[in-house]
Amino acid sequence: MPGPDLSEHERLAALRLARSENVGPVTFRQLLSRFGTAEAALTALPELAKRGGRARPLAICPAATAERELAGLAKLGGRLVVLGEPGYPALLAAIDDAPSVLSLIGRSELLARRAVALVGARNASANGRLIAETMARELTGLGWVVVSGLARGIDSSAHAGALAGGTIAVLAGGIDKPYPPESEALYRKIMVQGLLVAELALGRMPQARHFPRRNRIVAGLSAGAVVIEAAVKSGSLITARLAGEQGREVMAVPGSPLDERCRGANQLIRQGAILVESAADVNEQLSGFGPPPGPFEAPTPILHVEGPEESNTLEELPVSAISEVERRLGPSPVPVDELGRQCQLSPPFLRMTLLELELAGRLQWHPGNRVSLLASAGGD
Amino acid sequence: MPGPDLSEHERLAALRLARSENVGPVTFRQLLSRFGTAEAALTALPELAKRGGRARPLAICPAATAERELAGLAKLGGRLVVLGEPGYPALLAAIDDAPSVLSLIGRSELLARRAVALVGARNASANGRLIAETMARELTGLGWVVVSGLARGIDSSAHAGALAGGTIAVLAGGIDKPYPPESEALYRKIMVQGLLVAELALGRMPQARHFPRRNRIVAGLSAGAVVIEAAVKSGSLITARLAGEQGREVMAVPGSPLDERCRGANQLIRQGAILVESAADVNEQLSGFGPPPGPFEAPTPILHVEGPEESNTLEELPVSAISEVERRLGPSPVPVDELGRQCQLSPPFLRMTLLELELAGRLQWHPGNRVSLLASAGGD
Repeated sequence: MPGPDLSEHERLAALRLARSENVGPVTFRQLLSRFGTAEAALTALPELAKRGGRARPLAICPAATAERELAGLAKLGGRLVVLGEPGYPALLAAIDDAPSVLSLIGRSELLARRAVALVGARNASANGRLIAETMARELTGLGWVVVSGLARGIDSSAHAGALAGGTIAVLAGGIDKPYPPESEALYRKIMVQGLLVAELALGRMPQARHFPRRNRIVAGLSAGAVVIEAAVKSGSLITARLAGEQGREVMAVPGSPLDERCRGANQLIRQGAILVESAADVNEQLSGFGPPPGPFEAPTPILHVEGPEESNTLEELPVSAISEVERRLGPSPVPVDELGRQCQLSPPFLRMTLLELELAGRLQWHPGNRVSLLASAGGD
Repeated sequence: MPGPDLSEHERLAALRLARSENVGPVTFRQLLSRFGTAEAALTALPELAKRGGRARPLAICPAATAERELAGLAKLGGRLVVLGEPGYPALLAAIDDAPSVLSLIGRSELLARRAVALVGARNASANGRLIAETMARELTGLGWVVVSGLARGIDSSAHAGALAGGTIAVLAGGIDKPYPPESEALYRKIMVQGLLVAELALGRMPQARHFPRRNRIVAGLSAGAVVIEAAVKSGSLITARLAGEQGREVMAVPGSPLDERCRGANQLIRQGAILVESAADVNEQLSGFGPPPGPFEAPTPILHVEGPEESNTLEELPVSAISEVERRLGPSPVPVDELGRQCQLSPPFLRMTLLELELAGRLQWHPGNRVSLLASAGGD
């Protein structure tokens, strides 16, 4: 069970922590689990990074910056929700690297309903767009909220079809930065009739590397993902892969082999995705997913110390553990479990070691609870 | 191992047996297994039918009729091959109700090569026909013979694409009755460059009920069947189902849900058929099927008595066995194994009983070695 609503003081500290250098979602979750509050974690941050091998100080997000972000969000009619709070979407909280904070504008009650992702080609055919729009509209009629990424093509058609019934658009940059420009009109409609969601700070322009991160949220909010018209190497297939890794149902609408835009969807089906042709097919496929989890059923508490095995003191962690772990890591991702077995470190020690390496900018997390050492290891 | 080439005398007897009233493929195979030669079976036929409960005599095919058929076939440049002969296609011989005899015109050596069936909608789209033709041509390039049913649409395109490399057309009626009329030009080309195959007697016009019988041969000759553009209730899906029941690979080319012609193929994929987009996909899928069986490796000998447990005497079969079996049969198909268990009849006795009931026109065989009693039971 998540903790109670946060105090404004703790919410500000959580936002500062989330916006600080090298604090990714996994580290954020572990810091809160370790230190109990965001404020305590913020205090410990510089020393942890130093122990991880960082030469110059870590850039901590100043309180004024975080305050500006919260004020800007409020001015747009939005609000911030922190991982572990009651308003944080339960399915999304279940993924390994759930966003630390989410900015929301619109009908945030949509997050409590069961959702399905509809994604596909930006250069979709007229038929593909028709399928997306019809399927989205019919899915809302069956009680589903439709999640997508506000891109051109299939995403836009899915949002348009689901606009009246319930749709969530996940942005790759800040919540005030609709992308692409063509989607701005739709963005304004969703702001009122649906819900906008963003992980990054207000004002951040989306970069290429942000789109796969956005896609994990699209998948993470959803019981399943439907791919309509996707080329073989496309962002839609990344969303489908992430959905599969998150234990969500992966579905695809087939198409002619003569159309390059259908190759990715057909390939997914060959690899085991469920072939769906209609909203009824999707609904039937997801019927086994059970009722939508209530907003108060987030699977893991993270804003409080998990138990007596966890200690808040840094002294207990031998500095040698860091070099011990580092020695066993390279550029190829290694499962954390395997690493712990080889280093003979208890899980709390291992988690702290990895956390410190990440804060030092030397560790990267990968799906499936795996980690690698960054090539540019060192003091930067 | 099949027996040696048949004498002209025995070949004529086999053709007469196959063309006699109520002698279906299963009965033909059992009669030969029981009596050793077609001639001996022909002699026993009237008495067997009488014991099965038939009032008026069975219509045995006269020698003159069979001679006329063989002469007519020879005049067209064709020949007859009997189940169990070396020239009979091995994969087809492996199915439960393999045709008793096949008429052939053309390159009968194609029967020794590995084959794949390509079937689909008669009212195929231009794209569907292009896919069929390209896939067929490329499959022959990979060493496959392409089997189809000479219908309009997908069948014709598949034959056309495979014409130069190797194609087999299976006719629903007699081998001299191309159907539909539009396919006659293609039929004449296949007669020269490919191979024509028919189960029914020369001169027989195809009837609606013959098409599913033809489809079982299309599937039976093939390691797998590929469905391209098929509506939900279509002959192509029957071919696919038969292929699956025969233990052959079932494949389908997907298409847009907006096109009714693709619904059947998509449905097949949802039910477990392999999604294929190209000849390479089909070839890869069938690679596990092993090398093509040689023409001398038919799986079951049928032209000779199988062993001492079989007896040629009719006296050994108690007449009571027939009523015993009949009592347990109804219009719903029952597995033969289950029937034998319930009647406590040994397999040879049970087979003879079923054979006599079939000769009397009172028994129907179904896929999966099941039988039912015909509604119009009695002396006709």
